Amino acid sequence: MTPTITAFAQSPDRGKGLARDMRVRWALEEVGQPYEVHLVSFAEMKEPAHRARHPFGQIPTYEEGDLVLFESGAIVLHLAESHPGLLPDDAKARARAITWMFAALNTVEPPIVDRGIAMLTERDKVWFAERLSILDDRVRVRLGELAGRLGNADWLDAAFSAGDLLMVTVLRRLSGSGVLEEFPNLCAYVARAEARPAYKRAFDDQLAVFTARPPGA
Amino acid sequence: MTPTITAFAQSPDRGKGLARDMRVRWALEEVGQPYEVHLVSFAEMKEPAHRARHPFGQIPTYEEGDLVLFESGAIVLHLAESHPGLLPDDAKARARAITWMFAALNTVEPPIVDRGIAMLTERDKVWFAERLSILDDRVRVRLGELAGRLGNADWLDAAFSAGDLLMVTVLRRLSGSGVLEEFPNLCAYVARAEARPAYKRAFDDQLAVFTARPPGA
Repeated sequence: MTPTITAFAQSPDRGKGLARDMRVRWALEEVGQPYEVHLVSFAEMKEPAHRARHPFGQIPTYEEGDLVLFESGAIVLHLAESHPGLLPDDAKARARAITWMFAALNTVEPPIVDRGIAMLTERDKVWFAERLSILDDRVRVRLGELAGRLGNADWLDAAFSAGDLLMVTVLRRLSGSGVLEEFPNLCAYVARAEARPAYKRAFDDQLAVFTARPPGA
Repeated sequence: MTPTITAFAQSPDRGKGLARDMRVRWALEEVGQPYEVHLVSFAEMKEPAHRARHPFGQIPTYEEGDLVLFESGAIVLHLAESHPGLLPDDAKARARAITWMFAALNTVEPPIVDRGIAMLTERDKVWFAERLSILDDRVRVRLGELAGRLGNADWLDAAFSAGDLLMVTVLRRLSGSGVLEEFPNLCAYVARAEARPAYKRAFDDQLAVFTARPPGA
């Protein structure tokens, strides 16, 4: 059965691959699972039909027959558990890869999202410059720790896994901030992931949604 | 083999069960797995010996022979996958329970943590009152959506699962804020979880660390 995911009808990042459907598209490409995309507008996301799929009115969701999932991390883990290619076979290595999935979403992403929220909603506040500096420093602490652990390795724990997939999508959210560039091994890590054929296919597909439908069209 | 977890030597919440080791203790009690606790000071958390366990210098960690895990969500999932009792047997129900684990940590917890960070670090800022109001509203949006999905059910998806365990620990972080009290069904949900014998044992054990070692002792 071909699964269906949801994605933004009008991508707020203009196709830079920063929306969370990119994680799921990339995972689907890594495991070679064809899929369909149901685009939803911002208004549709908050309506009952979409809330039935996603209680918090967001994207992506994942539907496979009568199984309905939300949360990009949970969908990627579901794909990784039901297809080979995104988690090691060894039980311990598998548990460590899953640890990196949670670390990406719970420890590294929150200060990066906070920075993004402030950029979007606090630019006109008198406190913006002071807050941004605090937020940047909070991001730097996490990136420094991550860079220290990664060192010169290609991936976080031996082979590429769903943990790397999520971590790279989290780091890419710093695009344009200049902060990631302070950590050369993390930049190389992101570039290494972006060079994967599955990443490129997923990126092109999410970009096509934007180029096919310019904002306001 | 008896696993060992790490927890704060001096609990910053004075034993209210809000530190993230509580999640792991509770999961261990639910599945009936005995464990040992290695207490670490704030200074020790940032030293190389602990960084080797946890790259971000936090608690909890989980050690079982040569398997070393960090991230409370990943540890709870590891316990749920290696013992019966925290995830349904049915594959679809299992995927949905895991979705709630990610929803707890990635969608509901971030605005709650942001509010906590502001309470700790921004009280002396001129912007505090305005920011707190924004942060409270952000929490209310998520709680309203969660309350809408839970409705009159006992748990988020049929039987109690690791998804409920994490969600309840996230909601408990609002303790003292008055915000959770605006959502009676969420308060009842938290109380229902707190009444579980496994919760009580875990709570008492983390409290004993504090009562045995008053701050500064």
